[in-house]
Amino acid sequence: MINEKLPKIWYGGDYNPEQWDESVMEEDIRMFKLAGIDVATVNVFSWARIQPDENTYDLEWLDRIIDRLYKDGIYVCLATSTGAHPAWLAKKHPDVLRVDYDGRKRKFGGRHNSCPNSPAYRKLSERLAGTIAERYKDHLAVLVWHVSNEYGGYCYCDNCEAAFRVWLEQRYGTLEKLNKAWNTAFWGHTFYDWDEIVAPNALSEEWGHNRTNFQGISIDYRRFQSSSLLDCYKLEYEAIKQHSPNLQVTTNLMGTYSELDYFEWAKYMDVVSWDNYPSMDTPFSLTAMTHDLMRGLKSGQPFMLMEQTPSQQNWQPYNSLKRPGVMKLWSYQAVARGADTVLFFQLRRSVGACEKYHGAVIEHVGHENTRVFRESAELGAELQQLSGRILDSRVDSKVAIVYDWENRWAVELSSGPTVALKYLDEVHKYYDALFQMNVQTDMISVEEQLDRYDLVIAPVLYMVKPGFAEKVEAFVARGGTFVTTFFSGIVNENDIVTLGGYPGKLRKVLGIWAEEIDALLPGQQNDIVLNKPLGALDSGTYSGSILCDLIHTEGAEVVAEYGSDFYKGMPAVTVNSFGEGKAWYVATSPDKTFLQGLMAHLCEAAGIQPLLATPDGVEVSQRAINGSTFTFILNHNAEAVQLSELPNTFTKELLSGEAVNGSLAIAAKGVAILES
Amino acid sequence: MINEKLPKIWYGGDYNPEQWDESVMEEDIRMFKLAGIDVATVNVFSWARIQPDENTYDLEWLDRIIDRLYKDGIYVCLATSTGAHPAWLAKKHPDVLRVDYDGRKRKFGGRHNSCPNSPAYRKLSERLAGTIAERYKDHLAVLVWHVSNEYGGYCYCDNCEAAFRVWLEQRYGTLEKLNKAWNTAFWGHTFYDWDEIVAPNALSEEWGHNRTNFQGISIDYRRFQSSSLLDCYKLEYEAIKQHSPNLQVTTNLMGTYSELDYFEWAKYMDVVSWDNYPSMDTPFSLTAMTHDLMRGLKSGQPFMLMEQTPSQQNWQPYNSLKRPGVMKLWSYQAVARGADTVLFFQLRRSVGACEKYHGAVIEHVGHENTRVFRESAELGAELQQLSGRILDSRVDSKVAIVYDWENRWAVELSSGPTVALKYLDEVHKYYDALFQMNVQTDMISVEEQLDRYDLVIAPVLYMVKPGFAEKVEAFVARGGTFVTTFFSGIVNENDIVTLGGYPGKLRKVLGIWAEEIDALLPGQQNDIVLNKPLGALDSGTYSGSILCDLIHTEGAEVVAEYGSDFYKGMPAVTVNSFGEGKAWYVATSPDKTFLQGLMAHLCEAAGIQPLLATPDGVEVSQRAINGSTFTFILNHNAEAVQLSELPNTFTKELLSGEAVNGSLAIAAKGVAILES
Amino acid sequence: MINEKLPKIWYGGDYNPEQWDESVMEEDIRMFKLAGIDVATVNVFSWARIQPDENTYDLEWLDRIIDRLYKDGIYVCLATSTGAHPAWLAKKHPDVLRVDYDGRKRKFGGRHNSCPNSPAYRKLSERLAGTIAERYKDHLAVLVWHVSNEYGGYCYCDNCEAAFRVWLEQRYGTLEKLNKAWNTAFWGHTFYDWDEIVAPNALSEEWGHNRTNFQGISIDYRRFQSSSLLDCYKLEYEAIKQHSPNLQVTTNLMGTYSELDYFEWAKYMDVVSWDNYPSMDTPFSLTAMTHDLMRGLKSGQPFMLMEQTPSQQNWQPYNSLKRPGVMKLWSYQAVARGADTVLFFQLRRSVGACEKYHGAVIEHVGHENTRVFRESAELGAELQQLSGRILDSRVDSKVAIVYDWENRWAVELSSGPTVALKYLDEVHKYYDALFQMNVQTDMISVEEQLDRYDLVIAPVLYMVKPGFAEKVEAFVARGGTFVTTFFSGIVNENDIVTLGGYPGKLRKVLGIWAEEIDALLPGQQNDIVLNKPLGALDSGTYSGSILCDLIHTEGAEVVAEYGSDFYKGMPAVTVNSFGEGKAWYVATSPDKTFLQGLMAHLCEAAGIQPLLATPDGVEVSQRAINGSTFTFILNHNAEAVQLSELPNTFTKELLSGEAVNGSLAIAAKGVAILES
Repeated sequence: MINEKLPKIWYGGDYNPEQWDESVMEEDIRMFKLAGIDVATVNVFSWARIQPDENTYDLEWLDRIIDRLYKDGIYVCLATSTGAHPAWLAKKHPDVLRVDYDGRKRKFGGRHNSCPNSPAYRKLSERLAGTIAERYKDHLAVLVWHVSNEYGGYCYCDNCEAAFRVWLEQRYGTLEKLNKAWNTAFWGHTFYDWDEIVAPNALSEEWGHNRTNFQGISIDYRRFQSSSLLDCYKLEYEAIKQHSPNLQVTTNLMGTYSELDYFEWAKYMDVVSWDNYPSMDTPFSLTAMTHDLMRGLKSGQPFMLMEQTPSQQNWQPYNSLKRPGVMKLWSYQAVARGADTVLFFQLRRSVGACEKYHGAVIEHVGHENTRVFRESAELGAELQQLSGRILDSRVDSKVAIVYDWENRWAVELSSGPTVALKYLDEVHKYYDALFQMNVQTDMISVEEQLDRYDLVIAPVLYMVKPGFAEKVEAFVARGGTFVTTFFSGIVNENDIVTLGGYPGKLRKVLGIWAEEIDALLPGQQNDIVLNKPLGALDSGTYSGSILCDLIHTEGAEVVAEYGSDFYKGMPAVTVNSFGEGKAWYVATSPDKTFLQGLMAHLCEAAGIQPLLATPDGVEVSQRAINGSTFTFILNHNAEAVQLSELPNTFTKELLSGEAVNGSLAIAAKGVAILES
Repeated sequence: MINEKLPKIWYGGDYNPEQWDESVMEEDIRMFKLAGIDVATVNVFSWARIQPDENTYDLEWLDRIIDRLYKDGIYVCLATSTGAHPAWLAKKHPDVLRVDYDGRKRKFGGRHNSCPNSPAYRKLSERLAGTIAERYKDHLAVLVWHVSNEYGGYCYCDNCEAAFRVWLEQRYGTLEKLNKAWNTAFWGHTFYDWDEIVAPNALSEEWGHNRTNFQGISIDYRRFQSSSLLDCYKLEYEAIKQHSPNLQVTTNLMGTYSELDYFEWAKYMDVVSWDNYPSMDTPFSLTAMTHDLMRGLKSGQPFMLMEQTPSQQNWQPYNSLKRPGVMKLWSYQAVARGADTVLFFQLRRSVGACEKYHGAVIEHVGHENTRVFRESAELGAELQQLSGRILDSRVDSKVAIVYDWENRWAVELSSGPTVALKYLDEVHKYYDALFQMNVQTDMISVEEQLDRYDLVIAPVLYMVKPGFAEKVEAFVARGGTFVTTFFSGIVNENDIVTLGGYPGKLRKVLGIWAEEIDALLPGQQNDIVLNKPLGALDSGTYSGSILCDLIHTEGAEVVAEYGSDFYKGMPAVTVNSFGEGKAWYVATSPDKTFLQGLMAHLCEAAGIQPLLATPDGVEVSQRAINGSTFTFILNHNAEAVQLSELPNTFTKELLSGEAVNGSLAIAAKGVAILES
Repeated sequence: MINEKLPKIWYGGDYNPEQWDESVMEEDIRMFKLAGIDVATVNVFSWARIQPDENTYDLEWLDRIIDRLYKDGIYVCLATSTGAHPAWLAKKHPDVLRVDYDGRKRKFGGRHNSCPNSPAYRKLSERLAGTIAERYKDHLAVLVWHVSNEYGGYCYCDNCEAAFRVWLEQRYGTLEKLNKAWNTAFWGHTFYDWDEIVAPNALSEEWGHNRTNFQGISIDYRRFQSSSLLDCYKLEYEAIKQHSPNLQVTTNLMGTYSELDYFEWAKYMDVVSWDNYPSMDTPFSLTAMTHDLMRGLKSGQPFMLMEQTPSQQNWQPYNSLKRPGVMKLWSYQAVARGADTVLFFQLRRSVGACEKYHGAVIEHVGHENTRVFRESAELGAELQQLSGRILDSRVDSKVAIVYDWENRWAVELSSGPTVALKYLDEVHKYYDALFQMNVQTDMISVEEQLDRYDLVIAPVLYMVKPGFAEKVEAFVARGGTFVTTFFSGIVNENDIVTLGGYPGKLRKVLGIWAEEIDALLPGQQNDIVLNKPLGALDSGTYSGSILCDLIHTEGAEVVAEYGSDFYKGMPAVTVNSFGEGKAWYVATSPDKTFLQGLMAHLCEAAGIQPLLATPDGVEVSQRAINGSTFTFILNHNAEAVQLSELPNTFTKELLSGEAVNGSLAIAAKGVAILES
């Protein structure tokens, strides 16, 4: 578990006492107790409050707040306040201000406003984290350290440009190697001096935020900026650890946020935490996938749900209220997939500025007689009752989906064959097919060991990094099932094409050669013709879209073929026997029915069982610890559902405390946690 | 009346003799006489012509033009020429050039090109206005003074930034008060020195022109820029008044233009004037509302229609011709609602640059044998015939709609709950419901006295300024009917939420509490269920959209309730008895039928009579003076209409001069002015 | 013919050996021979490879490559490498970097990256061209010189601004004339010093890339930039000619690319070459028109197809493969319309950067067993077989369509009457109507002699330059048929309106006056009522859109009239007898049926015969030399077609070598070349 100071699922959220008169706190704490809240995240945006100038630190007000909270048994998730720098700092040390994608030097304002390679920012943020850590290292209220806030955004200033050159020199050693890695001979961009290299943005090699002339420099700049921000995090991390070596340190991530390589970040985080803000049209299977990805960042270790709204967001175009029950349902979805905390942004609404219409446990009206508060208090009571039963339990999956940030950058920066290809969407299509069957799935990095899985799926693995193809070969040879798709195996880690025929290093294990890649227009499809049934999937005609690889088998067996256009009759899906296992190639982006049938067949063939059969809209996930298994059943429907013929291993429903006898009713938006 | 030099409705428009050889004027004047034109606006863009350098003023050419016009009885509306600065000025004093929203220093070009806080611009524009005023103060041709042209646009340069800090210090006195007013504690933006404050634009706190991190600074910057431009106007105003204390001074406004707070401007204008350029899809009731708003700027005083096109615009995407009759119809619409002038942009078309395809009384062909000229001459003859009968007459309304520029800024800058909420649209919905019934309505500021009205409507009065709630309470207590809507009463003048429950200071008079605010998706609706008829509005199910407040009554009576979703059965429309009067709350944005029924009921209950019952598409407005009432009937339809059973108080139709006997035919796009 | 070194249709394309190890070449050359390739374009982007610094030139690697190619009989199209400057040059001489439309100084990156008025760029590009020309002037491999690459883009830096002022002074002589030409009196923009003039971009007079306050300055800046880039070309041209006076020099143009006035450029090119990249939705008649335009640049002289893709592009949103046969079909389309080369971009795919997914004869797989290679080799064999038969043959047209770049700029920069008007589309409508009938058409400049044509069409000839109206009058007087349309004859070469009535200088020959111009909304139409049949075009009701001129006849006969709106009954199409000929005016943009009928009638009346009657989708074009005529029949359909009743003058089909006896089957996407 995260730590033993509070051995239950932590419940609470962001509290911003720097924004109001301290006298308000008495009433707030009364309501926190009413709601069962035991954790408050504090000090997230207090840099300017703590430091009115470069040499003064005022933490007495924070002492009072933390003491006052702890007096009533409320712990703190203690932030370092470096998520936005003070106005005086911007004025005194303009190097803290970023230069944006369009090459404009920014002025003071906003959030995410510090250049990660600013000497002043690095020095003062590290010093601030150390000062705070030193002061509160022994405070019993402190549960966990929270560095900065939602790191993100890139900078293109001269300091970054200079640091980029140093980073490149470390990566490549010589300009000869760099020129080759980026293929600068194309368009005569050969560099003869490190100083000739400039940051790739709208003034040089890029436009439109994800179009580039040179994929190599653009991918490297993303690596470099992700790494620069990570360096800032690490400086604070070390400053904290010097004083507080035994408490966990985290920073709140943002799910599938594209700019930072979170697998790299997670290596330096004691516990992963993240902020879950689904948009109104986010499928709940995508939220589930994101929880699984966050769990996967540290190979299955439980994570923190650091933020979610109790009711409504403010920055969406249309900020609908969470319907009754939804906040609880989504909270349990996080827990079901590995979260050991349920924290809100925010406990109390601010009165001014851009987040004042973001929901809070304590609304502007200020009292507890609101729907939002009542639901919060119900959840608080349930979490008290669950106590520590679920804490630190693990999710066991036999299926893994490979997810890779650098591959995503490369796919999205590619000029051709199609703008319709979205890496995240393709990954989600495969995840969703498994999710609909209640097959538990891990989201893993390309560095993860594959041995514990029976089925590994790597959709659109365009970039194949050194060693990965060999790992796949070993996995399949030992009996594993591997699946990959069109536009995979094309380039190496520098976005340089592997010559000799697509899919490059994956060609051998897949037993195919992709001669050409056809891009389909929006709305256009080709047929996928399945001549014999595939498990429960009937023979017949299905459809593919986006891209169609024109492939030839080189040992693989043809499972389905194209049904139209000039490549009618060429293979659309193949399977290759390789050692004890099989490697599948899906040469186009299939429709939902086909994909679900294919996944069902692969699971069945690999002996992977769904957790439970449930009606549409009912999600199932499982965590286990010390011989106990907790099966979460989440009804996303607006109507109640009745489950029957449940396995008799389910003995008890934890929220109601009642025994279960093979059948169970779950209310609309309701949740059950079955123990077995 | 504006003044007595020309005691009739002034007729004419912009004439730009600086663009052509003076010999052309002879022919122009011949045609002006043919068309009945008696006023020419001159000198609008002649700064560069008058001043070839900083110390030379050449006005002899202008003498000749004004003399020549006056020789044929044509008066001038004399402009100061400061609407665009000369190229030499930009080169010599670059501080006159603006810095734009994206932080870019502009170069010479365009219109609206002067920084309002430029020392050079302020000095030289004031000097130019004074020089012109001194020269022409006694010229009999001068009817009215016209300062600059269509003030607009903001600047973000260092001079503006410095002036903004001074303005803020005057407004707030201390940084403590400013920090509180803007809630800078949010995101740690606390200021410790005035110099730390920077202009809010795309380099600091804003993006997308109406998104901001801090509403407080953004609203204040709008106030400051509106006030800075107004200062420029005032400098010229005073310079003119020094020499010409008895003639009116104006500047041409632009209707609902959002960047300037015209209620504040009107305080410094002797007469309001404005430029009417409906787009092709502008409903004619919106044009009517804008005329009423312009009339409301000075509490009902007649205004000038300074510009409209005789035929076609040039800057719309698709510039359709005004169909036959439309120019006259729209001219009378202005007069019907308070205009005492009908002026065109422009009298003669320019031959080059971006407005050469903007219509003119004298087209490029140069002679009078055009449809446009014929219609202009017909109107000129009619206005001669009307003589001074209508001049200075007033509009009498028992209904007022509150309109507030600062509230508009606050609504449009709000982050959440929905981007679908457009203040102007919501105001227009209420106006249109009254307009369709021919109920005369005033558009008033929040500073206006409410006593003269029976019904006051304040749609989406999100920002409630000091004293306004108390004024409403007094108005209702004395027997008035007040109506407001969802998302009202939320914040104070600094956009800081009034804590303790929405709608804040309006809660008492309305007798309700709004617990939550739900944002609906585009196309989504909730039902408004009316259980008993409301006047002539049948009971039944109507619809609401955009936002739905979830309200509880606190003394108010429920008039209608929601019909669907989880808040089904909660109140959608309430009425609270307060003293002698009633206060209504409309918790969502209703459909047209409901709103029209509601307005009809409120008018009926308050004893407010429509001016006349007319077929669809026939507009009615009334002006009165010295016991005479003039009822304008405007047929916007493409077919003739027949009115019957007219009250026998109508004795005469002024345009035809014929007697009226209870019935009247009005041609397609035709106009009647009935005297009674 | 281009020259006699290789007396056949040259076949090959871009080869970029600077991108790979020279050892690859052996295999490449083996495949070139297999494919019948005899020309390689080299050295297009090698500046950085040749010049590692300002004073070093390394051409030994290029010697080896050219020698090696020539050893196997492969000639080179030798480029000067100045299409993109080296990184060291940008660092050492920042004046080579452009300032963009938004006023941003660019950093190193991209292509089209040199400022045309940069002293360093001009000096070093000229020196490089001279150095290369000197070295290879006597090399037998060199077939033709290729300057830079796809010139394009504008710059707005201080050097350009200064050069613009010099250019203006040369053009206008005095500021008085310039002020008048631009009508700067409008908005008081009068210039008193040349230094007050700034480049028109988003910081001064323009926005949105094609909106402007002053059309005059914006058109002149386009002229100036086109001319500045042309100056750069001319510097290299002269440097080459000094050493290699007898070989042709070209640069690759881009069809209807709008920024450069290619008629002006062609004057300084020995042979026109261009790059043909139709988008997926480009009608093949538009590609045909573009070939005809390229042929028209030098009055019918054969041109080079410098680039096309053998399979797939990379920079389109959706890069579909060219279907089987399409590459050959489109290659012959170029030849049919005047190309004497068929060259690809590219012979081998690059491995990295943004064009690696652009098709190539040698794909990433590296061998010849691909569909793309097979089709390339088939074409190579056919071109060998055709040998020099078609070389240097000419196209004979009796119909010409006038196309003018400056007119296009003026139309697109116009503020009003409609944004829907696209010059290129209107020209293409007329071209397509002729194309569908297989009427051979020339695309000509306004400077071309009209005498050789029977029918001349000038759609939307908004800008009428000095002398053109007189030329039209002479042409018609002598018996020619002239057609023009709405929005023609409005302005002179400076975009100043010709006063006295539209269509200005064309009014006399057309015998009409256009009083007003109505803009129609998207989707809106007016009727074109044809009361009597027009040749084969039935009487009846057709439709017009976009703009409707409201015209009066002044001697012309009414052919068709409007059928609706207030101008119902006014003329929509007129014809005026003038001397021996006729001048037609089409007052709106007609539907396809009407336009095709009108064109058929005009051709018939002028005795112009279609080349051949063919089924839909079958294109015909003809070239002739020394008494032999070659008729190309191109089947764009996905099905085979059967032609029968062919004239018996067709004796032989050149590709099959078989005799033709009145009938012919052409496969789907197939081609026939009939000799007669």
